[in-house]
Amino acid sequence: MGPELVARLLAQPETTATADLLLISDPAELALAEADSGLAIDYATTPTEGRPLLVDNSTRRPAGEFERRKATEAGGRWAMDNLRVALDLAAKGEVDAILFAPLNKSSLHLAGLAESDELRWFETVLGVEGFTSELNVLPGLWTSRVTSHVSIAEVDAGVTRDRVAAAGRLLDSVLRGGAGIAAPRIGVCALNPHAGESGRFGRHEIDIIAPAVDDLRAAGVDATGPFPSDTIFLRARAGDFDGVLTMYHDQGQIAMKLMGFDGGVTIAGGLPVPICTPAHGTAFDLVGRRAATMGSMDNAFALATRLGLAARLG
Amino acid sequence: MGPELVARLLAQPETTATADLLLISDPAELALAEADSGLAIDYATTPTEGRPLLVDNSTRRPAGEFERRKATEAGGRWAMDNLRVALDLAAKGEVDAILFAPLNKSSLHLAGLAESDELRWFETVLGVEGFTSELNVLPGLWTSRVTSHVSIAEVDAGVTRDRVAAAGRLLDSVLRGGAGIAAPRIGVCALNPHAGESGRFGRHEIDIIAPAVDDLRAAGVDATGPFPSDTIFLRARAGDFDGVLTMYHDQGQIAMKLMGFDGGVTIAGGLPVPICTPAHGTAFDLVGRRAATMGSMDNAFALATRLGLAARLG
Repeated sequence: MGPELVARLLAQPETTATADLLLISDPAELALAEADSGLAIDYATTPTEGRPLLVDNSTRRPAGEFERRKATEAGGRWAMDNLRVALDLAAKGEVDAILFAPLNKSSLHLAGLAESDELRWFETVLGVEGFTSELNVLPGLWTSRVTSHVSIAEVDAGVTRDRVAAAGRLLDSVLRGGAGIAAPRIGVCALNPHAGESGRFGRHEIDIIAPAVDDLRAAGVDATGPFPSDTIFLRARAGDFDGVLTMYHDQGQIAMKLMGFDGGVTIAGGLPVPICTPAHGTAFDLVGRRAATMGSMDNAFALATRLGLAARLG
Repeated sequence: MGPELVARLLAQPETTATADLLLISDPAELALAEADSGLAIDYATTPTEGRPLLVDNSTRRPAGEFERRKATEAGGRWAMDNLRVALDLAAKGEVDAILFAPLNKSSLHLAGLAESDELRWFETVLGVEGFTSELNVLPGLWTSRVTSHVSIAEVDAGVTRDRVAAAGRLLDSVLRGGAGIAAPRIGVCALNPHAGESGRFGRHEIDIIAPAVDDLRAAGVDATGPFPSDTIFLRARAGDFDGVLTMYHDQGQIAMKLMGFDGGVTIAGGLPVPICTPAHGTAFDLVGRRAATMGSMDNAFALATRLGLAARLG
C-alpha cells in the first residue's frame, strides 16, 4: 500500500510546506495512488513553487499491468528503477534526502538484487566504501547495528573495534541530526551472554567492544557499555539511553519489535544522503482498503527532512 | 534475601500441605530467616508428619560470620555445600524435586565453581551425560535453549540437529509435567536473521533446524518452525505458542526480560530430578527489608512439586 501512503502524505499541507519534493514515479502509478486513497495529488510536471514535481520514470515501467498484492519480478524491477533515479539525483547533489514507501524484499530478489539487502545495493550504486548501517528508530529509542544481514556464524568476525566505533559515531550523528539531541546517550550492547562474564563466555567485550567504547568517548560520543543485551533494553525503555548500539540483527530487532511497531522508521545510515522508510512492510492485505496507519510514514518523512537539512547545514 | 523468601514460603499452610519438605540448611540460617521475615519456622529435627524436616548441614558451615549483602567465597561455598546435599539426596532417590532460593553466581565462582554455570555443575555432581537445558518460565510462556553460557562464536557449532531435537523434547516434557498441557504448542526459533532468508544468511535453518523440527513432529511433539526470532515472541505473546525453543541465551532472554520479570522461574531441565529457582537474583539491597515479592518463589515451589510428582508418576 505504498502508493496510498504517498498520496496521504502529500495531502497533508505541512508536507509540501516542509520540503521541496520530487516524486519519482509515473502518472499511472500516481493515478493508482489517487484511486487507492481517494485523494487527489496536486503534482506538477514542470518545476512549480510549493507543488511536488513528478520525475516521470514511465519509460522504465515494465510492459503490461502489475499484479498487485504479490511479490513479482516486474514489481521489484520498478522499485529498483525508481530508487536508482533517486540515488542518481543524490549522487549529483540534487536531493538532500530520500524517502521511499515500503518495498518487498522478495520482489527485489526476484528482480535480481545481488546484494544481501537494499542498503548494500545503495552502497554499490553510490560507490560507498565506508561503514554503513541500518538504523531502527522507534519514538524515543534508536538503534544501529555493527553487523546486519549475515549468518550468526559471521557475527563474531564482523564485530571489530573499528566497526563498533563507526556504528557508534553513525548513531550519535544521526541522533544529533534526526532527533535534535545535542549529546545523545548511547548504550553499547555486549556480544556474548552476560557480557562475556569476565571473559568466561568470550573475550570480545574485553578485547574489542570496551576499547571501541573508549574510542567513542575520546571522540566526544557519550557511549557507555558494553552491557548485557538481555537487560540493556529494559534500561533503554526506562529512559537511560537515547540510542542502543547493537552487535547483530536479531539482538536489536527482537527487542525493538517487542517494544512496539507503531511509528517505527528504518534509516539507511552512512551514505552521502539519508534514506528513510517506514519500518513496516508492504502489507499486501491492506492494499486499496484505506486501512493503513500513517504513523511510520509521517515519522519517516519528518526524519528524512530533518536529517537532510542537518546534512546540508553540515 | 533467600532466607526471608524461604521463611515466607513455609509460613503459607498450603506449602507443607502440598509436599513433604526437607530443609537443607542449619539452625543458625533458619534463625536468620526468622529474623529477616519476622515469621517463626515450625521445623522438625526428627521426621514428623506435616512439618518440614531440617537436614542439618552445620558441620559444613564456614567458620565465622557471613558478610551479608555481598558476594563472598564463604557464601558461595555454603550455597554449594547445601546444594551438594540436595543433589546427593536426589541421586539416592530420596527427593523428587529440588527448590533453591536465589544464589549469587559471583560467589559460586569465588568458591571455585569450575563449570560455566550451576546447571553444568549439577551435571558434574550427578554424572549426567545427556542433554540438559535451563528452561525460563513466565506465566504463559516457557523457553528452553539449545546453547546457553557460551560465546556467540560457539553458537553455530553448538546448534546440531540432535541438540535441537533434544531441547524440543525437554521443553515438551516439562510443559506436560509442569504446566499440565497435554500437547504443548512449541515454536522453534531460527538461528540466523530472517530465518536465514532462504539460505542467503546461513543454511542452519534448512540443513539442521527444519530437519530437527521434523524429528520432533515424528516423535509426537507439536513443534513448528523455524521462525524468525524477531517476530516469534510477538506470536508467543499473542498466544500462538506454549513454549519457544531458542538457539542461544540472549535470543530468549532479551525477549523474556522485556516481557516481564514478575513470577519468572528458572528450571534446570534434563537432570534426574527437576531443580527450580526463582528467576530473579539475590537482591542484596532488599536483604532484611521484607520488601521482596513472593511471585517467583511461589511459582518455583509450585513447579518443583508438580514436576517432581509428574516424574514420580512417570
